[in-house]
Amino acid sequence: MDFKIAVIKGDGIGHEIIDETIKILNKIGKKYGHNFKYTEALAGGAAIDKTGTALPEETLNICRGTDALLFGAVGGPKWDNLPGRDRPEQGLLKLRKELGLYANLRPAVMFDELRRSCPLRGDIVEGGLDILIIRELTGGIYFGKKYTESDKAEDTMEYSRHEIERIAHIGFQTAQKRKGILTSVDKANVLETSRLWRKTFEEISPGYPDVTLNHMYVDNAAMQLVYNPKQFDVIATENMFGDILSDEAAMITGSIGLLPSAALGNNYGMYEPIHGSAPDIAGQGKANPIAAILSSAMMLKYSFNLPEEAENIENAVKKALAKGCRTSDIAMKNEKVSTTEEMGDIIALSL
Amino acid sequence: MDFKIAVIKGDGIGHEIIDETIKILNKIGKKYGHNFKYTEALAGGAAIDKTGTALPEETLNICRGTDALLFGAVGGPKWDNLPGRDRPEQGLLKLRKELGLYANLRPAVMFDELRRSCPLRGDIVEGGLDILIIRELTGGIYFGKKYTESDKAEDTMEYSRHEIERIAHIGFQTAQKRKGILTSVDKANVLETSRLWRKTFEEISPGYPDVTLNHMYVDNAAMQLVYNPKQFDVIATENMFGDILSDEAAMITGSIGLLPSAALGNNYGMYEPIHGSAPDIAGQGKANPIAAILSSAMMLKYSFNLPEEAENIENAVKKALAKGCRTSDIAMKNEKVSTTEEMGDIIALSL
Ligand SMILES: CC(C)[C@H](C(=O)O)[C@@H](O)C(=O)O
Ligand SMILES: CC(C)[C@H](C(=O)O)[C@@H](O)C(=O)O
Repeated sequence: MDFKIAVIKGDGIGHEIIDETIKILNKIGKKYGHNFKYTEALAGGAAIDKTGTALPEETLNICRGTDALLFGAVGGPKWDNLPGRDRPEQGLLKLRKELGLYANLRPAVMFDELRRSCPLRGDIVEGGLDILIIRELTGGIYFGKKYTESDKAEDTMEYSRHEIERIAHIGFQTAQKRKGILTSVDKANVLETSRLWRKTFEEISPGYPDVTLNHMYVDNAAMQLVYNPKQFDVIATENMFGDILSDEAAMITGSIGLLPSAALGNNYGMYEPIHGSAPDIAGQGKANPIAAILSSAMMLKYSFNLPEEAENIENAVKKALAKGCRTSDIAMKNEKVSTTEEMGDIIALSL
Repeated sequence: MDFKIAVIKGDGIGHEIIDETIKILNKIGKKYGHNFKYTEALAGGAAIDKTGTALPEETLNICRGTDALLFGAVGGPKWDNLPGRDRPEQGLLKLRKELGLYANLRPAVMFDELRRSCPLRGDIVEGGLDILIIRELTGGIYFGKKYTESDKAEDTMEYSRHEIERIAHIGFQTAQKRKGILTSVDKANVLETSRLWRKTFEEISPGYPDVTLNHMYVDNAAMQLVYNPKQFDVIATENMFGDILSDEAAMITGSIGLLPSAALGNNYGMYEPIHGSAPDIAGQGKANPIAAILSSAMMLKYSFNLPEEAENIENAVKKALAKGCRTSDIAMKNEKVSTTEEMGDIIALSL
């Protein structure tokens, strides 16, 4: 089959890691008889430099003509002093909004081989960690009304029942395929939006009798992730809380540089590593391509419905780690360090 | 000297822990020649039961006639199903707002004796943890405009320059007396309020040349607290971010049941343990009074300017822990368990 993929390499290490990812996708294509067609597009700092804006209209058009978007990373010190509205991140936010990518899936998984880099005490993560965070991505305080004058500013957190419902359904359905536990995180003791959030999840819950729904306040969730992360299966939460908790969850796994993510809309998906553009090591072959490669596995699964191919990639990554292949970010003292390309090659060999 | 203290025991274990705290204060009074006069007032569930509202006007009047407020804890399952606006927590929020308690000081400190209950890997917390979080407490999304209809809800995060300035000054001044590092946490890549927050901190910074000011995004801060908490000295942040991060910070110290807090206004302070009302163990002598007792030490320091007396209490707590006195929450298997009252007695003996 033919699949059209938009590719935004972005800034910093975005280029290197996406190059390795395409290498993997091509090999999968050959093995299973698929044809992946890539179209490159600009976003972030690179787009600001060439076109003056972080998300050119041309990029949106390219995306709209494809089946999915593979995204590297954006941003860097070069653009850090631009006014808020002109920064590379704005390209990312606009992309999510314009393409209607309302559900952000962020797995927080511990890799056996990297257990020693987990910051939590061994007994707390005994047996591993496997949490899936579902973050609402196109609503809330990110996209609500804003207001500013010299001595005063306002941001509005806005939610409609419809926006909450579609996240709730994804939450329940995802939990059905996993351990059947859904934790909805809110701040219903303070926020009206959270009270609507909680009510909507409650109303949808009876349609999924095989899923246990729990509610948790966001401050408590931030504690529980450190204290007892194994209690979680699927966490569903609004945009800002999801931003904070998904980063915390990624960090407690000890594999932050290895974790992928998906941003899904009704007919389109964007796939990107959760790590940043790491401008300090860009172009030196030091970047770890695993998060980007695992993002492409999510693309195969969620956008192209190719679960077997996705699993093949995931297993190849595990094999490369098991063989002891380490980029500098995950190497211990005295371990041999592989380059970005070498890591890509070893994963490709394990496919 | 004479000091007038309003006392709100609240719900659940609030009674037991405040009783022990008063025992300590009385002993300190005798030792140093101060006279503490207490006036009890109602708030939370107890107030709902007796007066129909979580914060009776009478309580505010009592507070206004005193020098400081000692607060236990509020809430419990009995009042959990009341509509949002009538719940015990609303009493707490109204108290903060009405008394103008805009700066919440939350120390996140590790106690040597409880090192084994720290959820982080030993090497990460080597040498201990001592972070002071300053949370803005009467602004932001907690108190901004709210709006709700059946299928839609809104909460507004609002900040004025004045509200930010007074927190910034407290942040810089506190850092001056500590290690001189102030980390301001915001989400300036998304929020207008955060951009005003960051700008205001920048403007005030030159007045404190001996303090290093860093800015950090809230999602990154949630990660850094787990990854490298020792980088922090003083953290200053807005209300909602402070709610989340201060709970996370408390949890990583492993001493969540022992931590006090202060909520300060221009001429008044409220002092309360950060733990909740623990209705499941209320009235059984199982509660740990240390957080409440340490809150009274903060009261002596911040409201009454009695730093020596405050230190005396802090040292007495450390001595009681060093002697091996453990309430059930902090006892390991096979350790002898003391009651709430016994813990109070041992601390009193160490004064
Ligand atoms: C760069 C920033 C705007 C973005 C966000 O807050 O959503 C990032 O933190 C993320 O989580 O993807
Ligand atoms: C009870 C709740 C309203 C309160 C808050 O969010 O401020 C609590 O979590 C706290 O941190 O004191």
